[in-house]
Amino acid sequence: MFVSETKLRVRYSETDQMGVVYYGNYAQYYEVGRVEAMRELSTSYSEMEKRGIAMPILSMNCKYIRPAQYDDLLIIRTTIADMPATRIRFDYEIFDEKGNLLNIGETTLVFVDKVTFKPCRSPKWFTELLKKRFCER
Amino acid sequence: MFVSETKLRVRYSETDQMGVVYYGNYAQYYEVGRVEAMRELSTSYSEMEKRGIAMPILSMNCKYIRPAQYDDLLIIRTTIADMPATRIRFDYEIFDEKGNLLNIGETTLVFVDKVTFKPCRSPKWFTELLKKRFCER
Amino acid sequence: MFVSETKLRVRYSETDQMGVVYYGNYAQYYEVGRVEAMRELSTSYSEMEKRGIAMPILSMNCKYIRPAQYDDLLIIRTTIADMPATRIRFDYEIFDEKGNLLNIGETTLVFVDKVTFKPCRSPKWFTELLKKRFCER
Amino acid sequence: MFVSETKLRVRYSETDQMGVVYYGNYAQYYEVGRVEAMRELSTSYSEMEKRGIAMPILSMNCKYIRPAQYDDLLIIRTTIADMPATRIRFDYEIFDEKGNLLNIGETTLVFVDKVTFKPCRSPKWFTELLKKRFCER
Repeated sequence: MFVSETKLRVRYSETDQMGVVYYGNYAQYYEVGRVEAMRELSTSYSEMEKRGIAMPILSMNCKYIRPAQYDDLLIIRTTIADMPATRIRFDYEIFDEKGNLLNIGETTLVFVDKVTFKPCRSPKWFTELLKKRFCER
Repeated sequence: MFVSETKLRVRYSETDQMGVVYYGNYAQYYEVGRVEAMRELSTSYSEMEKRGIAMPILSMNCKYIRPAQYDDLLIIRTTIADMPATRIRFDYEIFDEKGNLLNIGETTLVFVDKVTFKPCRSPKWFTELLKKRFCER
Repeated sequence: MFVSETKLRVRYSETDQMGVVYYGNYAQYYEVGRVEAMRELSTSYSEMEKRGIAMPILSMNCKYIRPAQYDDLLIIRTTIADMPATRIRFDYEIFDEKGNLLNIGETTLVFVDKVTFKPCRSPKWFTELLKKRFCER
Repeated sequence: MFVSETKLRVRYSETDQMGVVYYGNYAQYYEVGRVEAMRELSTSYSEMEKRGIAMPILSMNCKYIRPAQYDDLLIIRTTIADMPATRIRFDYEIFDEKGNLLNIGETTLVFVDKVTFKPCRSPKWFTELLKKRFCER
């Protein structure tokens, strides 16, 4: 298991006329969560693309528990529970500053060659970085 | 069962640097699907809010089958399979112009009082409109 | 002068907690305006990119006169006032269904080679299409 | 004059298929710039709304100099050059990490009563906060 946390301030643009964060914007928050998780592994999604691998999304599931509000400083906790093979799953929990759980989500991504879009295995250098941190816990 | 179809043109703003529609934007497409489904029932989501009821989202699930491309004229097929009680579920299938299935999704919404945010039952006038069309099929 | 009109339904996702369309979303409406203007010229922005030319934005100016509301069916009137050379300017006026003017904007785009990003002239085939319609008015 | 700087990481969702930040997303970056400028004044836009005042946008102008890229850590420099009366103008300069100027913009906002939407003057408490910081420079 590898767990990473990052913070994010809700923008006005992300609210809708119900006065809360639009339900579709959590996908962006999940993106921030997994991108910062990768950065904590001493790499980045940008690095992944530079090395010729893209990671399109296969599926996403979201549960909306409490609405996030404008200007909330959210905590996004991202978990990689299993070592990736051809796919990688990220789980997300989003909290407000008081520690209330607002949202739960998960995305499954697939590793593909950036040019051919053919599926491939998680690159060894990435798996190694992840293994190191898996051992720490 | 009530089924409704609507068309939608992919905007440039909805693509990302992978050259396809960003995975988070399908939530907006689902919104267009269910809003137009409600319009086909001779009402609208706007009407629902004017009558004091909001419909926040409880959960969303998405499966990404093939990527939608810039300028694609998508067909969004929205299905209400069950008569709503305190919740309503919408299912979505998104096709490109050639009939390829690109994306499958579902959202569950809850009826709430717009002011107190307390859950309530699907309003009778809405259930009646839906019943009429359920009978037709 | 070439003038084109298109319609667009305001999405819930495009509103913010002020209860109106978020100011940053008009750029997307302008995009729809100019893309449909190009389609009316029997081509498309997509076609332009396929022929190796991209059209990044140099500048944008917006005036917010009245707010657009959720579910409004907006009319976007797009004008190309001058024949393009290395740049092309689009002017936009956005109206609601009652004919109220809500927003005025303009964008200046530059023609560039899609690969090198070097500026180039408006391609002849595009200028010809535009000339035909300039003559009609 | 009051100047404030804040940092912002470009999200994947903010790019488009040209491989750079979509031109309409700078409005969101400006929003982050002025919101953080207000926070540096020991208040917030959220506080402003809680005190009954909203600040809709009257106009926006943007100049696109160089494209921002995915994962760039942008610096947004926000300037209030003049003490506000019924309107307030914010100027923005956006830089990448190497100090390259990418984008210049400005927005003019109007103070309005949040309920009636009638224009009003900049509230005294806000003007005082701003004055203190104007004096420091």
